[in-house]
Amino acid sequence: MPPGKGGKADGPASRSTHEDLAPQPPSGEDRLLRRILDVLPPLAAVEGGAVPRLTLGPGDDAAAFGWPGGGLLLLTTDAAEEGVHFDRRLHPPRAIGRRAVAAAVSDIAAMGGRPAGTLISLVAPPSQESAAVRIAEAAANRARELGAPLAGGNITAGERLGLHVTVAGAIPPGAPLLRRGGAKPGDGLFVTGKLGGAALGLALLRQQVEVRTASLAPEEEALVARHLDPEPRLAAGAALAGAAHAGMDISDGLALDLHRLAAASGVGALIEEPRVPLAGKGARGLEAALFGGEDYELLLAGPRKRVGSAAAAAEIPLIPVGRVTEAREGVRLRRAGGVNEPLPPRGWDSWAGAQRGPSGR
Amino acid sequence: MPPGKGGKADGPASRSTHEDLAPQPPSGEDRLLRRILDVLPPLAAVEGGAVPRLTLGPGDDAAAFGWPGGGLLLLTTDAAEEGVHFDRRLHPPRAIGRRAVAAAVSDIAAMGGRPAGTLISLVAPPSQESAAVRIAEAAANRARELGAPLAGGNITAGERLGLHVTVAGAIPPGAPLLRRGGAKPGDGLFVTGKLGGAALGLALLRQQVEVRTASLAPEEEALVARHLDPEPRLAAGAALAGAAHAGMDISDGLALDLHRLAAASGVGALIEEPRVPLAGKGARGLEAALFGGEDYELLLAGPRKRVGSAAAAAEIPLIPVGRVTEAREGVRLRRAGGVNEPLPPRGWDSWAGAQRGPSGR
Repeated sequence: MPPGKGGKADGPASRSTHEDLAPQPPSGEDRLLRRILDVLPPLAAVEGGAVPRLTLGPGDDAAAFGWPGGGLLLLTTDAAEEGVHFDRRLHPPRAIGRRAVAAAVSDIAAMGGRPAGTLISLVAPPSQESAAVRIAEAAANRARELGAPLAGGNITAGERLGLHVTVAGAIPPGAPLLRRGGAKPGDGLFVTGKLGGAALGLALLRQQVEVRTASLAPEEEALVARHLDPEPRLAAGAALAGAAHAGMDISDGLALDLHRLAAASGVGALIEEPRVPLAGKGARGLEAALFGGEDYELLLAGPRKRVGSAAAAAEIPLIPVGRVTEAREGVRLRRAGGVNEPLPPRGWDSWAGAQRGPSGR
Repeated sequence: MPPGKGGKADGPASRSTHEDLAPQPPSGEDRLLRRILDVLPPLAAVEGGAVPRLTLGPGDDAAAFGWPGGGLLLLTTDAAEEGVHFDRRLHPPRAIGRRAVAAAVSDIAAMGGRPAGTLISLVAPPSQESAAVRIAEAAANRARELGAPLAGGNITAGERLGLHVTVAGAIPPGAPLLRRGGAKPGDGLFVTGKLGGAALGLALLRQQVEVRTASLAPEEEALVARHLDPEPRLAAGAALAGAAHAGMDISDGLALDLHRLAAASGVGALIEEPRVPLAGKGARGLEAALFGGEDYELLLAGPRKRVGSAAAAAEIPLIPVGRVTEAREGVRLRRAGGVNEPLPPRGWDSWAGAQRGPSGR
């Protein structure tokens, strides 16, 4: 399943033969997705011709269809559920709409695609009609800003607010598609920006609302903004899709998403702790970066020189954070002191009931 | 908003100048949709070139994008929410998945399109994991049967089961697109099959579960099957899109959907009661046909001869039910006795809290 938050289809690497690096149990959502993928019918042969043909099904950030006239259609869907992905006390309608659209557009960025249009499916209690209108308005505004204008949608009554966003995008004829599989041992690992800011921002927001603290410092406000109004890395995805071997967006935290990329590529990975760009300071900043989620930076793997040159040419900031290893080495973290430890596939997971990261969702 | 159940964007005809045919207040969902459409940003100019361009936004059964290499991409989304669109006591997971996919594919049929692929966004309480897996399996199987293989999706925890289905389809280069607007006074009005069966089937199903009646007669079982496993009219939509002036699927009942088609076309309509093909008998059968919804037959308007010939050539059953009139005449029903009455824009409406049709949803 392509999805964003909570729906990546691949579980953690499971090829390690070292006992101390034995695979962790998959996250709740990953396990459920595997159950579902196991019962899906095989794809039937599609007669060619006039109809777009599914060429990339469940397992990446977005599905891809070959368009008869050339190019690829990308489709992805993502959900924001009240009480799971947002809290009415913390999240105004504007933030609910903007975050959900940005999260879905981020999946298009993760494939190297260009956004084209957005559909929303909104659930709301009839008593919350004004909130529903404001959520739809915010989603439409954000969709337009991101080049994926609202094309349609659906509204239905329900017990709690929920916003499901589908975004269509395209890979122009001849342009490269970025996938999770394809990373090779020896590749560099890169991220497109600081990590952990969204999780720290959520924690600050919660603290502000619950404790009614005084106003936040400017750097704290910036973290809250990272959470409330994330920025999909569209330019980075399109510019680097050809140079990188593999990529995805970091929606559930570097650790969990790196496990997914490693599993899809059949490789291991080593992250160097001192290189991870932190939005916050100290151990808390590191915890948020590794396990916090919702940053929507891209994680890329590819030849260091080629990826670096492409990033420099397109003026895309790119931070090297480690390297791709053999699968048997598992997914590890090299601590500042030089010791390698297994990096657990832990992160945001709606199915497990709570994020086990620092933000306490 | 393109949608299926509950999300048509157009309200009832409001051009009548006859007091006795004064427009009814729009349905709850239509009113809410109008509020949302009012706050949406205008579509920005899209630079041409490599990206599909939105050519038909909210207001039809599906959105349409011009594909750079030719042809149109169609996108539609629909929702099935526990307690609103389905009831766990009545609807097994298989029916939940199959109905939701068929409803969304029906929107592609309503535009004259060919289905290409499906995304699902599933909400489920973690305690309902097995039901979630079976719903996804059923959705995937139905999607494959209908030529729209499951391409991806999303899963998230939530308090109640919910299934949001997005279907992509295509209009091949040069092939016609069927829209709600375009009906002209003098056009014939047609439907593709018997109406009211789904609503009567739901009532039988509820009766069977609640009263624990003995087994149903074969003709009753057929009505229940109409409700549990509807059939989108893909062949009819594709075959008649070029001959008809306007069309849509009947998801919320003939009356409400005819009001929407009339409003989008700026016309009135006259339905001849004795011509309406009824799935059930008598006054109850008529009530279900006019106001029951979920039949997913197509409603078409166009020149009688041209539409009739196209239907005959493609062996599509088509029943004439009335004609398109001037807008000032409103939307009316000619009773068996020859008297014309206003036909109220009444039907399935999740926002209004309940269907006011015979099935008592």
